Amino acid sequence: MLRLYDNKESRNGYKVVMLLNHLGVAFERVELDIFKGESRTPEYLAKNPAGKIPALELEDGTVLAESGAILWYLAEGTDYLPGDRIGRAQVLRWICFEQNAHETSIAEARFILHHPELSRGREGDILAEKHKRGNAALALMDQHLADNHFFAAGRYTIADMALYGYTQVAGEGGFDLSQYPAVGAWLARVAAQPGYVPAPES
Amino acid sequence: MLRLYDNKESRNGYKVVMLLNHLGVAFERVELDIFKGESRTPEYLAKNPAGKIPALELEDGTVLAESGAILWYLAEGTDYLPGDRIGRAQVLRWICFEQNAHETSIAEARFILHHPELSRGREGDILAEKHKRGNAALALMDQHLADNHFFAAGRYTIADMALYGYTQVAGEGGFDLSQYPAVGAWLARVAAQPGYVPAPES
Repeated sequence: MLRLYDNKESRNGYKVVMLLNHLGVAFERVELDIFKGESRTPEYLAKNPAGKIPALELEDGTVLAESGAILWYLAEGTDYLPGDRIGRAQVLRWICFEQNAHETSIAEARFILHHPELSRGREGDILAEKHKRGNAALALMDQHLADNHFFAAGRYTIADMALYGYTQVAGEGGFDLSQYPAVGAWLARVAAQPGYVPAPES
Repeated sequence: MLRLYDNKESRNGYKVVMLLNHLGVAFERVELDIFKGESRTPEYLAKNPAGKIPALELEDGTVLAESGAILWYLAEGTDYLPGDRIGRAQVLRWICFEQNAHETSIAEARFILHHPELSRGREGDILAEKHKRGNAALALMDQHLADNHFFAAGRYTIADMALYGYTQVAGEGGFDLSQYPAVGAWLARVAAQPGYVPAPES
């Protein structure tokens, strides 16, 4: 059975949980307490040298890291990743945008506010820059979603799952989602997809 | 003919130039002076609403954005992207790592040092955090490259191109590459690949 190393606070892990549920694929979820160093043990570092979750362990022991790569691996050949080359490039465009502009601002602002004890010295200039960039990312998403129901290929794909993870909790990072109405409508469309599961309470 | 919107300082654009040269694909390169707003004109925003380079315009007018997605699009079906699912996931793992942990620290530290006039207020805590994270990224790369000639699939792929772009100029961001000998050896291996072209002078 597939084994997913995860942490309940992480929306990077939740993205993968979303897809596994959409696909109806059984998996074992292993909760790691990343705040007690459980992702930095020698045993775990042998699986994922980056010391991060999520990581997906396949039945043959191969371990895949990085949420975007895990989503891609699981979605190949399914309805959640287009079969055509342009469609795949558009999906990957948004996965890269999420990793570069969105996760590094919205997820990290949420972390700073959730964990002030681990974020000393980051609540000033660093948090302000994350708010500026996160709002720019949300504005670009809102613009795109004003004309599109989903991010790529005209349908619900792993690009939407990648972006849903932290957008849904942007408020916890100090962002005002009411400024982005098309984003709000898209969040509701995602939550209405067959097989959708809400994130664990964190 | 393919048209690449680019800026000579950007190593995100250079990654795509590397691949196009490896593939021997002819293209027109359009230099945009991003510091004079040439990536924020209405005409360009209609092509890439993110207002960033690189963007690749196909012969039918379709525009692809995000360097990782452009690399993937161009590499599909070539030797630079594996044909097997695990190999593709490993390539994408490193492309996501580059976009999330590496470009946001190493490329941005370089930008702050290159453009102090555009980076006021970022030379303190923000730059210090980028140095800390960039060194962590380089250490992880060095560890991987101690046992591997290339990043994924046992051969030179677009994962290497994605990481080469800004690693090669990490010194301009204040990083000491001599601390990462396996990275240094890999940089030389990349530069020895058939069809390699150096980056433009910036």
